[in-house]
Amino acid sequence: MSIYYVNTNIVKTTRVFPKQGRAEYHRYDANENPEGLPLDFVEAVKKEITPEYLAMYPEPERFIGKYADYLSVKKENVYCTNGSDHGIRVLLEIFGEPDKEVVTVSPTFEIYWVCCSLLGLKHKPVQYNDDYTLPIGRILEAITNDTRIVVLLNPNSPIGNLYTDEEVQTVIDKAKKVGAVVILDEAYHYFYDKTFLHFAMENDNVVLLRTFSKLMSIAGIRVGMLVGNKDLIHWVRNSRLAYEMNTVGLLFAERILEHPEMIEKLITQEREGKAYFISELKKHGYWYMDCHGNYVLVKPKHDAHEVAKRLETEKKTLVHPYGNAMMKDMLRVTTGSRKAMEFFVKVFFEVDNN
Amino acid sequence: MSIYYVNTNIVKTTRVFPKQGRAEYHRYDANENPEGLPLDFVEAVKKEITPEYLAMYPEPERFIGKYADYLSVKKENVYCTNGSDHGIRVLLEIFGEPDKEVVTVSPTFEIYWVCCSLLGLKHKPVQYNDDYTLPIGRILEAITNDTRIVVLLNPNSPIGNLYTDEEVQTVIDKAKKVGAVVILDEAYHYFYDKTFLHFAMENDNVVLLRTFSKLMSIAGIRVGMLVGNKDLIHWVRNSRLAYEMNTVGLLFAERILEHPEMIEKLITQEREGKAYFISELKKHGYWYMDCHGNYVLVKPKHDAHEVAKRLETEKKTLVHPYGNAMMKDMLRVTTGSRKAMEFFVKVFFEVDNN
Repeated sequence: MSIYYVNTNIVKTTRVFPKQGRAEYHRYDANENPEGLPLDFVEAVKKEITPEYLAMYPEPERFIGKYADYLSVKKENVYCTNGSDHGIRVLLEIFGEPDKEVVTVSPTFEIYWVCCSLLGLKHKPVQYNDDYTLPIGRILEAITNDTRIVVLLNPNSPIGNLYTDEEVQTVIDKAKKVGAVVILDEAYHYFYDKTFLHFAMENDNVVLLRTFSKLMSIAGIRVGMLVGNKDLIHWVRNSRLAYEMNTVGLLFAERILEHPEMIEKLITQEREGKAYFISELKKHGYWYMDCHGNYVLVKPKHDAHEVAKRLETEKKTLVHPYGNAMMKDMLRVTTGSRKAMEFFVKVFFEVDNN
Repeated sequence: MSIYYVNTNIVKTTRVFPKQGRAEYHRYDANENPEGLPLDFVEAVKKEITPEYLAMYPEPERFIGKYADYLSVKKENVYCTNGSDHGIRVLLEIFGEPDKEVVTVSPTFEIYWVCCSLLGLKHKPVQYNDDYTLPIGRILEAITNDTRIVVLLNPNSPIGNLYTDEEVQTVIDKAKKVGAVVILDEAYHYFYDKTFLHFAMENDNVVLLRTFSKLMSIAGIRVGMLVGNKDLIHWVRNSRLAYEMNTVGLLFAERILEHPEMIEKLITQEREGKAYFISELKKHGYWYMDCHGNYVLVKPKHDAHEVAKRLETEKKTLVHPYGNAMMKDMLRVTTGSRKAMEFFVKVFFEVDNN
């Protein structure tokens, strides 16, 4: 019993934090770009980081304007957060009502249920079928008068299923009827190029999430994006402190947008690497699932946790093993350039064939 | 009327955000170091920023350990936040109870009342006397069974009064009796060298705040620190997402701690600059108040808002004018090196003597 008051939702939440000290490893476990942005680009942007620039409080407005131009929407439709996971927390804080429901599929990105728990919202997960399909009708059934937020990741993560425009439209319509906000999470956009941006622009109750952590390769300096109706974005702005972004993240994100040819090259490189990786998996008879993000689910021939452990200790290489029913025996392997995947294939086969 | 639920505390809060586009100005308005860290130090640290480093999710644990060593406390007593204002929000989220009270003095750092409003906590401000004094008895009277958090800034900001050990002890004792947490905010530590760290280490219900935005001169890359009892820090950890810090901020903060001689020089430079500024103010017959932080309150000879406006438009120089009763006619002027203050004195006298 504490001698002072502690928020009861926070007390009830059990947390698991990711491994640290990862710089020393080859990283295929967190869907970061294993190699990062081109060196010459990074060096050019670093020249703009001066002592005065570091000393100044961050100013996100110019970047927000440029991002709006980049998407051909208005500035009032865009806001940025300290990474996309922060954007998720912010949306749940604002549009989630205590003891009311947040509908997601399951399994999905774990931050959704962590934030529900920390904020006292009821998480209502809709389970996949055993064959990794999930009929949209099951999601629609889960949306009731108690629903305040519906979350769709496209592609979903870690199971990479996709939704059609018609399916998303039915979810938005149902959410409107019950007064719920729909979050369309496109963290893996660019690896998968279809977008639901138009739904965020055409509806009052839809917000699109994007991130600079995946294709854009700056997970370390935290830039996530929200796009939606101006009233919805207004409430987000109204809830935020002025200095939640960092100036170096804002600077890199702005410069990345100015280099569409670099963005294209990052997309091509990951596609080449993934195609090579999949061809090797096929050649060696592995079960795998291409999830439309920068990762592939693979069932190794030996126990998944054991293979992950051996990769870590023998090859200084990190992957993400799963243990729960549906994902049992699977590894999630981040995909990068052909060079990055040649290295991974080599160490993976050395460990899994022994 | 919204078609979806919006958190009622966020709806009720009216926000004012700071001016942007400040890079083009001489900045004496936000208590940033106008010049920043030494150039050779910044260039040396920038060498460590590689494409791979930017692509990796942030890992704060090594830095937290080093900060604990720096203060000679245990790692379990320390945590870091995305700036000190984020730390304030976090503490109010965890230890503030809806409709219960947060006691602060008034005026004080405005983020306290903003966060109370956003979180649905009752802000109970204790007003200064007209002569800028505030007997501790008035703060003690404000602490009741409805109090969950008591905030003391030392020195306070913007009015820079100081507390004695005895005064702080009585506040902690009273807070304990009613089950409240005490936040001791030392944002302006180093400019003022006394610390209440020992109170945070000796009591279960006390948390100390420090920041890397003021003396440490990296406001743009967001590093704030919390120090307290391990249970209290545990609840902070339990409430946070894994990736709230940014890697560049963590890197600079760690390297700054490795250079105590640079920290000493930053302290000396600000003291020299402030002493020069105050001697000039005295010589010219100005009312001023040295607030023990890196700023001075000054009453210009002409209207404060008009002087601020003319400094901005004619001299590209920013200061912070106040309008409310107690702070009426005052400018808050950030202090920096002698060189920085010579520039300010020149433009200020040019504007205010005309």
